[in-house]
Parts: sequence; structure tokens; C-alpha cells
Amino acid sequence: MTVHPSPPAAEPAVPALRDPGPGLVVLDPVRAALLNELDALFTGLADLMAAPTVVGPPLLPADGLARLDYFRNFPHLGVAAARFRDDALDALADGEPAQDQPVHGTGYLLPSATCYGLLLSLDSQDVGAELRLTAIGRCFRNEDHYDGLRRLWGFHMREVLYLGSADGARDHLARSKVFIEDLAGRLGIALSYQPANDPFYDRTGSRAKLMALDPVKYEFVAEDGTAIASVNRHRNFFGERLGITADGTVAHSGCTAFGVERWVHAMILTHGSARAALDRVRYVRA
Amino acid sequence: MTVHPSPPAAEPAVPALRDPGPGLVVLDPVRAALLNELDALFTGLADLMAAPTVVGPPLLPADGLARLDYFRNFPHLGVAAARFRDDALDALADGEPAQDQPVHGTGYLLPSATCYGLLLSLDSQDVGAELRLTAIGRCFRNEDHYDGLRRLWGFHMREVLYLGSADGARDHLARSKVFIEDLAGRLGIALSYQPANDPFYDRTGSRAKLMALDPVKYEFVAEDGTAIASVNRHRNFFGERLGITADGTVAHSGCTAFGVERWVHAMILTHGSARAALDRVRYVRA
Repeated sequence: MTVHPSPPAAEPAVPALRDPGPGLVVLDPVRAALLNELDALFTGLADLMAAPTVVGPPLLPADGLARLDYFRNFPHLGVAAARFRDDALDALADGEPAQDQPVHGTGYLLPSATCYGLLLSLDSQDVGAELRLTAIGRCFRNEDHYDGLRRLWGFHMREVLYLGSADGARDHLARSKVFIEDLAGRLGIALSYQPANDPFYDRTGSRAKLMALDPVKYEFVAEDGTAIASVNRHRNFFGERLGITADGTVAHSGCTAFGVERWVHAMILTHGSARAALDRVRYVRA
Repeated sequence: MTVHPSPPAAEPAVPALRDPGPGLVVLDPVRAALLNELDALFTGLADLMAAPTVVGPPLLPADGLARLDYFRNFPHLGVAAARFRDDALDALADGEPAQDQPVHGTGYLLPSATCYGLLLSLDSQDVGAELRLTAIGRCFRNEDHYDGLRRLWGFHMREVLYLGSADGARDHLARSKVFIEDLAGRLGIALSYQPANDPFYDRTGSRAKLMALDPVKYEFVAEDGTAIASVNRHRNFFGERLGITADGTVAHSGCTAFGVERWVHAMILTHGSARAALDRVRYVRA
């Protein structure tokens, strides 16, 4: 068979791509390019900090998440990976509606944040003086409502994680803040910096009071109120729970998180269209 | 607070990263770089064909998959996205083991191949003379056993999808074959090309006989028997089922798929170590 080269199409027309349901989106070529090129900018922080790229696990074990108080804090958020029960398989093969078939849990959940999988992968390890890692992953959260690219059932989160000393964690987050504010400025996004109102692992009682005095999570908020990035001080919480040490003492940790679809949203909001937003991202990257 | 720049670390030592369970892997920096750089090579096929990059949906609707005979053909493969039942949330918050809590299906499944989500997003559309799209996504399949990077519960699949005419689909797959064989050659991977033994949508009865005469799926198989890529001729199956037309007539389609972790596996197998494999990939990319 002869293989004929096709003439290169300048920018092929793509029909409107249909989303499969609430909180689930398909990104067309311009928005997909925005997502990928914004993430390339976020990895600039990882480069600056010499944080190597890893690929986190596709699913997280429920028992590992329980060790992190995940279910005490966020019981409703978790999306479980499930299997159809054996008695459902014949019904499925016979064409019975899949949405009516019984499922059982597998003991695994979809990630709700990128750093959980990285932290769990370091269970009982010593990271030396300090360790930084970066990863991007799809995250899933059951929310009570979904809203465009601002609040999704499935979305991408880029994180840059630090483990080491308390001072090192503080320095990591301080440098991250400078990076994020500089990047947002170059992209034209007006940001405010504020303590999160859903503080990380500190929702109730005495911990909530402590949080008011010493916030552990700050968010970077776009003009319409969308939090597009955050810096999270874990103190020694994960180090203690997972037995992760740094040069023999319980590790402190902290992470910087970028909600990638939310940056796409903020860029479109700021620049009026996805195309104009992409032009700006490419200008900044050039 | 003063922000002190850290000296750039040449190549930070990363402790061994623990996998969370069977068929689930965490990729350390060298294997993660292999994954990402191999995918950059695969996108060369998309560039050659002017296939724009999109981001497919995170989850697929069960009713949409049913229209594609997915559950008739692969009832056991599907990983369902589930929620904990309302009565489980209090138990979870009280620290009861999450793996024991009841879940219910949501009507959505994790993707088992990248092209399903793209095809479903084109439901009832006309693609013009032809349309190509590319995407990478994490895919999930329940298997009866898992085996290193060769057979995973969760893995990445890059696809380049074609919709248009029967001739166009044949041409797309023929050009893909040339690309894959050339790329494998440059990477040092010895490949054989053979009809798949799990033919796509053609497992039983008269269709199986037809398949023996006219295979619809061919695989590219590494020396240890691992299928690392495939070309899939859908004929007009998806066009008919989803009402997708090309210039007003039922669209033919075809897709080229790269199992990304399997290429990582084949490269390590061929070159003896992940580091040597990465050197080769970078040489080819340079």
C-alpha cells in the first residue's frame, strides 16, 4: 500500500466536543493547549527548586488514606474505584443497563490531590536532608455542585512537594509564593493571597482556633473568587503518620498546588477568550 | 521573609518509591522521564498528521459505553467510579475501615481506552471531510493478573484517532504503521507486526470468522511478547452507533494506540536499564 503524505492543515476545524456529564469536561484544542502550556510554566517552579518529576499512582489505598485522617476530614469527597459484582457481569453482557448493576469497592480510591500518592509512596522512608518532587495528576472530588472549569468532578492538579526540615518547608512555600505571584503577574491574572476557608486538616474545635492564629493553608484567588493555587504547610503531620523521616527526625512537609483547569478558567476570564489567553501564555513562554 | 535561592542540585537522590498495590505503579524520576519523553516522540505522529491535541473526559458514561457494546464485549474490564453510600459517611468519619463501607455506582466508569471518550464527545456530529484528534489519558482495566509495567490496572494510553472515509482510515493506519516501525527502529526496539488475538469488537461466532479473513486490529509486539502499540480499524462501527458522519455519510474511523508504560518496559528490556533507555530516547529526540 502506498502511503500518501497529506498536506499539513494549518489549524483543523474541530466540531464542538460534548462533555459527558456534570463536572466532567472535554477540552478542545485551544483549551487543551492552554492546559498543557500553563503546566509547562508551573514546572518552572519545579525546575527552580530542582524537584524531579515523578508519576504518582493511579489509585490510592483506602487504608493508607485512613492513616492520613482523610475519611474523618473529607468522607464525602472520595471517589471509589469499584468493580461490577460477579452476578452483574452476565447481566451486563446481556445488555442490562450498567448504571443499574451492583458494584463493590476495591479498597482503592481515585486521588483527590496529587501529593497524597507521593507521600504514601514514601511510607517509612528517610528522605535525607530534604526531598522535593513534582507531579501532575488527575484528581477527583465529589462536590455538591459543579461549575464550568471552576469546580469539576475530575481535574488536573500539579504539585511541588517538599519534605525535610520545618525551616526548609517554610522556605519552599515562601519561594513558591514569589513564583506564583510573579507568574500570575506575567500572565495578567490579578491575584489575592488569603488564608483558606477550608483549612487543610484543621476544621473543628481547638484545631480550628489554632488555625485562626496560624493558618496552614493559603490560597491564591482570582478576581472572580476562584482559588487557582495554594501553599500548604503540613507541619510534621504526614511525617508522623507515615513514619517519614529527614536525616533521622520526623520530616516536615509542605506542598504547592496548581489547579490547572482553574488557571485555564482564570486566563479566559482575564483575556476574554481562550485564543487570546493562549496567545498570552505563549508570549510568556517565549 | 527573605527568600534564599537554593543551589541547583545536579540530580537529587530520591528514595525508592513504594507502589500502592497490584497493577499500580509509581514512576521514579528516570522512568517518569522515559514516559514523558516517549510520549513526546509519539506526538510526532500527531504532528505529522496535523492531529490537534485535546484532553478527553475523566470519566465515561455507562449508557454511552453500552451504545458501543462495551459491556457485551468486556463486562469484566470496567472500573466503575463509585461513591460511598450516605450511611457510610458517618462510619467513615468515625474511623471505620473504608474498604468495608458500601458504595454505589455513579453511572460513570474510568476510561479503558483513550479513544472512547473522544468518540463519545463527537456524538451526532459531522466531522467534515475528515478529522484527526490526539490525546493521552490514564486508562484502567481489571485484569486477572498484573505484571510489572507490562500489565497494569492503571496506565497511560496515547492515541491518534481518525474519522472520515474508509480510504482515509486505511491511509491513517498505514501511515501510523510506517511511523511506529521507524520509531521503534530508531529506539532499538525489535518489533513484530501481527493480528491481535483479542480482536477489537469481534470475538464471537460469525464475526470471529470474518475477523480471521479480515483482521481489524494489528499489534506491534516487542521481543518478550508485549504488545506496545496497535492500529485499529473500526470500519463504520462507531460512526453508526454514535451517529457521527463525515460530509453527511456515516463516518469510518480508526485509531493508533501507544501503551506508554509498555514502551517504557520495552525500552528497559532492550537497553538493560532505565538510565540507558533514557539516554537512547534523548539521543533520538535530539
